Amino acid sequence: MNLPPHLSVRDSHLFIGEHDTVALAEEFGTPLFVTDEERVRARFREYREALEGHYDRVRVLYAAKANGNLALLRVLASEGAGADVFSPGELELALRAGMDPDRLLFNGSSKSREDLALAAGHGVRVSLDSLDELRALDAVAGTLGKTTEVAFRVNPALEIPTHPKIATGLASSKFGIPHAEVKEAYAAVLACEHVRPVGLHCHIGSQILALEPFVEAARVMIRLAGEVADLGARLEFVDLGGGLGIPYRRGDESAPSPREYADAVMPVFVAGVEALGIHPALWVEPGRSIVADSTVLLTRVNSTKAAHRRFINVDAGFNHLIRPAMYDAYHEVVVANRADATPVGPATVAGPICESGDILASDRPLPDVGEGDLVAVLDAGAYGFSMSSQYNSRPRGAEVLVRGDDRAPMRRAETLEDLVLAQATPPWL
Amino acid sequence: MNLPPHLSVRDSHLFIGEHDTVALAEEFGTPLFVTDEERVRARFREYREALEGHYDRVRVLYAAKANGNLALLRVLASEGAGADVFSPGELELALRAGMDPDRLLFNGSSKSREDLALAAGHGVRVSLDSLDELRALDAVAGTLGKTTEVAFRVNPALEIPTHPKIATGLASSKFGIPHAEVKEAYAAVLACEHVRPVGLHCHIGSQILALEPFVEAARVMIRLAGEVADLGARLEFVDLGGGLGIPYRRGDESAPSPREYADAVMPVFVAGVEALGIHPALWVEPGRSIVADSTVLLTRVNSTKAAHRRFINVDAGFNHLIRPAMYDAYHEVVVANRADATPVGPATVAGPICESGDILASDRPLPDVGEGDLVAVLDAGAYGFSMSSQYNSRPRGAEVLVRGDDRAPMRRAETLEDLVLAQATPPWL
Repeated sequence: MNLPPHLSVRDSHLFIGEHDTVALAEEFGTPLFVTDEERVRARFREYREALEGHYDRVRVLYAAKANGNLALLRVLASEGAGADVFSPGELELALRAGMDPDRLLFNGSSKSREDLALAAGHGVRVSLDSLDELRALDAVAGTLGKTTEVAFRVNPALEIPTHPKIATGLASSKFGIPHAEVKEAYAAVLACEHVRPVGLHCHIGSQILALEPFVEAARVMIRLAGEVADLGARLEFVDLGGGLGIPYRRGDESAPSPREYADAVMPVFVAGVEALGIHPALWVEPGRSIVADSTVLLTRVNSTKAAHRRFINVDAGFNHLIRPAMYDAYHEVVVANRADATPVGPATVAGPICESGDILASDRPLPDVGEGDLVAVLDAGAYGFSMSSQYNSRPRGAEVLVRGDDRAPMRRAETLEDLVLAQATPPWL
Repeated sequence: MNLPPHLSVRDSHLFIGEHDTVALAEEFGTPLFVTDEERVRARFREYREALEGHYDRVRVLYAAKANGNLALLRVLASEGAGADVFSPGELELALRAGMDPDRLLFNGSSKSREDLALAAGHGVRVSLDSLDELRALDAVAGTLGKTTEVAFRVNPALEIPTHPKIATGLASSKFGIPHAEVKEAYAAVLACEHVRPVGLHCHIGSQILALEPFVEAARVMIRLAGEVADLGARLEFVDLGGGLGIPYRRGDESAPSPREYADAVMPVFVAGVEALGIHPALWVEPGRSIVADSTVLLTRVNSTKAAHRRFINVDAGFNHLIRPAMYDAYHEVVVANRADATPVGPATVAGPICESGDILASDRPLPDVGEGDLVAVLDAGAYGFSMSSQYNSRPRGAEVLVRGDDRAPMRRAETLEDLVLAQATPPWL
């Protein structure tokens, strides 16, 4: 297994940065998410620098849905990141984290008028998903006495090799305006009083491990840019979205680095805009590839069972990390307190949730494991806590941030009181 | 579409009990779960009465994971329900709702010593999933100076026609002790000082629409009961678990009623125990079939889009109801404010979450729909709120209980502050 650079094994224990995961689990309890701040910063910088090496107008918008913890957003804000926000909550959290409204893009396939008013009120640009939304925004911005800048979310109708639930650029996807209709949309928006079209936006999917789909998407977007330029629109940015994957299967898989992504996509983009004689900014929206490998999920072994398979029963399940159960996703697991022990045979790491699908890892070569041992699930920084639930009335675990010798919670563990906080008893009961 | 008896269409509006869903959505906002209290009571009573018609020692334990709202648990407690609890949280909520500890069973495939101590301390019976757990419980109960009564969770290794993620009785499932090893487990427990074996327990799966699997499970359990009786154990209860489904496809599907379930299973059970000359209590653990159809999820239309398909974009997605995205589950949808309008063609109801899989209903015959209309998703009472998340930083909606002319929140809508309540900023940020 190829560990990312911030993870190491020292004296048989798994370390994250300078911190022994075994000690962190003792101190903060389990289940526990631990995130390495410097790793997040490094991945963000790699994107920015790689893209800036090709072009002078670049903006990296972090896809806040991947991990919306405020502390993490603050870290990224301090690096100059903007954010791709997909809900009023993500928009407000990004602002609260200190991000510049000018560096946000409010995305979404289903926005209410209240959502649109929030964005317009803060001067945040909006990516429009339909003509219906365009009319609603024009009305809302007019009421506020504002003019809102927008991009159109284009559906590029590309077939992308990833899980169908996260292939967002298929012709049949719910997202975006069919690319054949974008010219029409641009014509419509030019007639709106309170909406100013400034961008084109696409997003082709998630956890993509090949470069060619991104290159193809860039070609589609350049072609569209030419068409809208012909309409007389002044294109201020082209947003290619996110979607770069990470090598969850750390033995067998590899993923392009942000630098390789830039080296593949940017020549197409740069040549394209030069040929068109335009100079729009280039925006990208990485999420997973910035934060996924920064984080381990630590979970304690409650029991083991020799049945048809060897089961290792732990205290985190799909309430904390739904990706294996929902997307058949693969995450590496390491026995954190005996990280260099020899495997004795396949074992299945199962969570405490009352469903057969609550399996974190199936049939992995693992050493002897018993009650009290600690299992680390790697690459849990994206779509981990952000998709977590309180299913089975289980309070969620804490999140800890580490930097150098420092460590601190960025979220405390929930208690039963958190589960009933919003509950009320009807007066007749 | 066959509406359940507590739903009706009056003056074009969908009603739940005596309440206009359109008025409820106005009053409490959307997304909104609305539950009919009398429907829950009626379904629970149907179970109890049908089973008691066949046998004199019957106990109905509600599967709290299906919907763990405290008000709902209180309603069921007032009917004499116990609960199948699967976590410390579910156990504590059941007690808080006023359920008798004698009527609880603490289940789970991954329990910590703290979990076991909680059950032992409250005198709650435990369903043991492994020999490892038996030894841990014996130690824990000993420390507390208690003797804990237990059942063994048996894996009956039955092939059940349902979604593989919820077929819990397969040979390969993480749950239970292989049935060939149950005798051995019973022998082991007879040697434990602080654990007293009193029951046998199985659960074959969820959303099962045929009766034969339940009958077959009863046969397996009777056979096992005979084997453990031969060991000299005094069997005080046999728990057949839950699993009865509901007809989510209200046009094409039907499901056995609790009465049909009892009429199929109980003769096998009663004849079996009589042949063995024993008289254990019969426990069952229904969840979905008690609460699923009691509840509608109301969601507001934000926009529509004519793309490759007709999309109706609403304000609830898989953050509120994950079943369609996770299990390809089907839920009927009704345009609540024009419930008798004529369909004009297929439409797809899509949520606001940033994933292609965030579709509540695909290609359904629906009338013309526009911004501001209200969509009701039926049968959202089981595994709806209980599996909900705050994904995309979306606060969760309210839950309202209706009874006769009364209505009241049993959970208020969350706000952004609820999302950041447990968050903390590391001192160096």
